[in-house]
Amino acid sequence: MDILVIGGGGMVGVKLINRLAAEGRLGGKPIGKIIRQDVVLAPPPPASSFPIETLIGDLSSPGEAEKLVALKPDVIFHLAAIVSGEAEADFEKGYRINLDGTRYLFEAIRKVGGGYKPKVIFTSSIAVFGAPFPEAINDEFFTTPLTSYGTQKAICELLLSDYSRRGFFDGVGLRFPTVCVRPGKPNLAASGFFSNIIREPLAGQEAVLPVGEDVRHWHCSPRSAIGFLVHAATMDTAKLGNRRIVTLPGVSCTVGEQIEALRKVAGDKVVARIRREPNETIMKIVSGWPRNFNAKRGLELGFTTETSFEDIIRVHIADELGGKIA
Amino acid sequence: MDILVIGGGGMVGVKLINRLAAEGRLGGKPIGKIIRQDVVLAPPPPASSFPIETLIGDLSSPGEAEKLVALKPDVIFHLAAIVSGEAEADFEKGYRINLDGTRYLFEAIRKVGGGYKPKVIFTSSIAVFGAPFPEAINDEFFTTPLTSYGTQKAICELLLSDYSRRGFFDGVGLRFPTVCVRPGKPNLAASGFFSNIIREPLAGQEAVLPVGEDVRHWHCSPRSAIGFLVHAATMDTAKLGNRRIVTLPGVSCTVGEQIEALRKVAGDKVVARIRREPNETIMKIVSGWPRNFNAKRGLELGFTTETSFEDIIRVHIADELGGKIA
Repeated sequence: MDILVIGGGGMVGVKLINRLAAEGRLGGKPIGKIIRQDVVLAPPPPASSFPIETLIGDLSSPGEAEKLVALKPDVIFHLAAIVSGEAEADFEKGYRINLDGTRYLFEAIRKVGGGYKPKVIFTSSIAVFGAPFPEAINDEFFTTPLTSYGTQKAICELLLSDYSRRGFFDGVGLRFPTVCVRPGKPNLAASGFFSNIIREPLAGQEAVLPVGEDVRHWHCSPRSAIGFLVHAATMDTAKLGNRRIVTLPGVSCTVGEQIEALRKVAGDKVVARIRREPNETIMKIVSGWPRNFNAKRGLELGFTTETSFEDIIRVHIADELGGKIA
Repeated sequence: MDILVIGGGGMVGVKLINRLAAEGRLGGKPIGKIIRQDVVLAPPPPASSFPIETLIGDLSSPGEAEKLVALKPDVIFHLAAIVSGEAEADFEKGYRINLDGTRYLFEAIRKVGGGYKPKVIFTSSIAVFGAPFPEAINDEFFTTPLTSYGTQKAICELLLSDYSRRGFFDGVGLRFPTVCVRPGKPNLAASGFFSNIIREPLAGQEAVLPVGEDVRHWHCSPRSAIGFLVHAATMDTAKLGNRRIVTLPGVSCTVGEQIEALRKVAGDKVVARIRREPNETIMKIVSGWPRNFNAKRGLELGFTTETSFEDIIRVHIADELGGKIA
């Protein structure tokens, strides 16, 4: 089984490839090779019993999708996108990368023909939803995105569903919760603080909290995110019928509950490293984000995740900090 | 005020232009001119106090959208599309006409700049919904189309909403009920029988009913359809907020109720011209279609339509038959 990971150089792509390399198999079948593709050079590939090839390129450039699909991978993970803030700041780039790139990929697959029908796992986002919404969003709630990024993801969901219904590929679209705790450095994403206020204090650093403690949001760990992708690639997709998009389970909690979870896991000394610095701009952006979901269908389809924010913190300490708190 | 009608040669386009020509104004403002555009020659324009220009072209051809937008119309009615059956039979043509054509139009408007911000009225469809659904679909139900046509309409809805949110134009997307009684000859559309079983018997002709009398569907008259377009072009769009798409009100009734309404309006002799000829293919297609809506928001926004199928039949007799039944 050959696997293509588009966006293989990003945080999720790297972790996915690490797990596949460690396991050597996907859904019980031995992996023949992995092709990882991204616009930037990824870190060196992990040790593996199979070859891992690296291709540098832009999915939205002419011919790139055809080149990738000509390798006839059995499973395609499409993780590539520019983030919400960038897609909002640069309208044309957002549509080019997040919409046209995806459509080129789908078209390239369709045009291979001859019975080629790969599994395509696409990472969508809860950004397809826009306020106002109910306290918990159910599986049949409509998509009214309030960003161009969310619009692009919602359009790709529709394309994936239609191409799957037509039999061009076997697609699954996953609406990821906000991945938390994101490893690495603080970034400028408006959602960054959800991770920053956990990761930085645990590493002995100060972190800024720009919103009130009553802000509620929807989270999963990076480990769960990889688990979702692997489950989507190995599940019986007949269970999806024509509804190829899945809102994934997550942990809904307030910032106050995040902080109390951090206190339980790491103590007062660590919590004291969080500094309140209200930021009206971030507060306004965050007020339009989903707070909670009733992800019944995702759970029924076998997707699993953490059940508390404490668990999410413990996953971070185990996977990123070697079990140690500063 | 200058008005562009894309798809001006179709049934709805012709009736819209006839009404605008008769009234001479839109939203209280005198009409300067109408440009009607279509791929085929429309019938001669109606008498009017202002010029009506005809342009023949394909919106999905390079440069066509730019040419139309360069005329800087104040209001653009975008009615052009290929129908459901054709978009399903010809995948590439459907995406080219129904998706790319619309996107070209939106992009052309965005690129004019300099404060140009027309009103854009887009005809969407209840085909954005796919079974299974509740008995009555509410305003927050999700879009899971089961045809490529419905997918293309749902994508254009998302684009229209994002371009409007960004301020590139002032868009309204209208999810039309099935327009009934369609004037003209019986056609091959799977939905054709809803109109055929009324129109043909009223004209002294036999009509074929391919489904059972328990089939329920969602209708409005052509007169209402034009009313929806005019209301959308003249309403206060601030009331829409960022939710630019409106599910329109309609009449939900079964085929049996349609026939009883015909009996009340036109008598047993006319009803006797309906011949039952069950067609499994059509039954299967129709089973995936919406049956009923709770179009609360559309009504609150001031869209109005018939309240019974008898009214729909009476509109047909008045507008198409000069008040006379064969």
